[in-house]
Amino acid sequence: MKKRLHLIIADSELELVPESIIDHPAIVNYAKRRKKKPEKIILDSTYHHAALRQLEDGERRGRPDIVHICLLNALESILNKEDRLRVYVHTRNDEVIYVDPSTRLPRNYNRFIGLMESLFEKKAVPEDLQLLKLEKKTLVELINEISPDAVFIMHENGEFMISKHFGKLLASFRKPVVIIGGFPHGDFRSKVDGVKISLYREPLMAWTIVNEVIVSYEWEVIK
Amino acid sequence: MKKRLHLIIADSELELVPESIIDHPAIVNYAKRRKKKPEKIILDSTYHHAALRQLEDGERRGRPDIVHICLLNALESILNKEDRLRVYVHTRNDEVIYVDPSTRLPRNYNRFIGLMESLFEKKAVPEDLQLLKLEKKTLVELINEISPDAVFIMHENGEFMISKHFGKLLASFRKPVVIIGGFPHGDFRSKVDGVKISLYREPLMAWTIVNEVIVSYEWEVIK
Repeated sequence: MKKRLHLIIADSELELVPESIIDHPAIVNYAKRRKKKPEKIILDSTYHHAALRQLEDGERRGRPDIVHICLLNALESILNKEDRLRVYVHTRNDEVIYVDPSTRLPRNYNRFIGLMESLFEKKAVPEDLQLLKLEKKTLVELINEISPDAVFIMHENGEFMISKHFGKLLASFRKPVVIIGGFPHGDFRSKVDGVKISLYREPLMAWTIVNEVIVSYEWEVIK
Repeated sequence: MKKRLHLIIADSELELVPESIIDHPAIVNYAKRRKKKPEKIILDSTYHHAALRQLEDGERRGRPDIVHICLLNALESILNKEDRLRVYVHTRNDEVIYVDPSTRLPRNYNRFIGLMESLFEKKAVPEDLQLLKLEKKTLVELINEISPDAVFIMHENGEFMISKHFGKLLASFRKPVVIIGGFPHGDFRSKVDGVKISLYREPLMAWTIVNEVIVSYEWEVIK
């Protein structure tokens, strides 16, 4: 069997507008402008900043842009074109988005947001091909389902290892899972067991870690 | 002197709306919605598709999203944090954007578009720090100015080389330039001399090449 990397963007700050702020003017006006119902729009810190201040963890929530950039990098990678990658998005509300490797994600951010809103409503998009599917699931349940032979968590307090060496380590497994936080700062909310790894002495953006991990693994498994 | 990689996103499809389509309904309505003058907005294929059909090369123009993703990946890379990278955006109309390595680019696409519109108007943003500067300049003029000891052009008809080997080759120079096309498909418009390199048997997105080149060079120069 082919070795394959399973990448999870975990605790991603991707969610519909929470009910508690649905009447906030920042939300109501934004929804009106987009001609959508407030309960059907994706929370976005760029536009809902004033409303976010009323939420727990408000300073880190509403970051669909992080998911977008991580997915564009992962899906267009050589590793994915060689069918050696599976990518999943796990959210703060314990939903999991299964991403078909053949998905051609919208490059335009606003179209991506529209797609996510459809996905949260219909649970699968597009309706015929179902390239993206959303299910209620915790990070631990997702990992159990994948049934990997190793779990690594990219963490600023993890064991320091340059990505070249991490790529070699990953390639020594048949089906490794790598967990990358889909949030701008702070720690994971989910509790999960795994080996913590840090690729740099400073925190990195989620998409930077995606790129480092994918390219370093690619070199070991594609000859 | 430190070895440093000079990355040029060349012939990028980043421009203001051309005068010939300034009265097209797709442009006029979009400008009105954004409360901007039509001549001050960035051409965007997602919204100006109907107008683009009237332009030469209309099927590849209006792709600021490609520049955005390439820059986010480059600026947040470990290579850039180690001060081993300089990145430039060259456009189809022979403008060059100098990007200060410390720039924290807007993650949100719509904010990035707003920033580009300011840049085309004011030639430097933000007004005090001038992290981004725009000058009228051809690709050849930019390369002469950098004065590199090697020039590589990422090209689907180039010599095939996996990125690991390309990283080693790049690191054998003191100040190499790597040119990556900032357009969705087709060939470079600018004529430039250099060694053509292909990292994969199929065309890759511009940001995928950015990631491959940066990570592979990084491993050779950061110890």
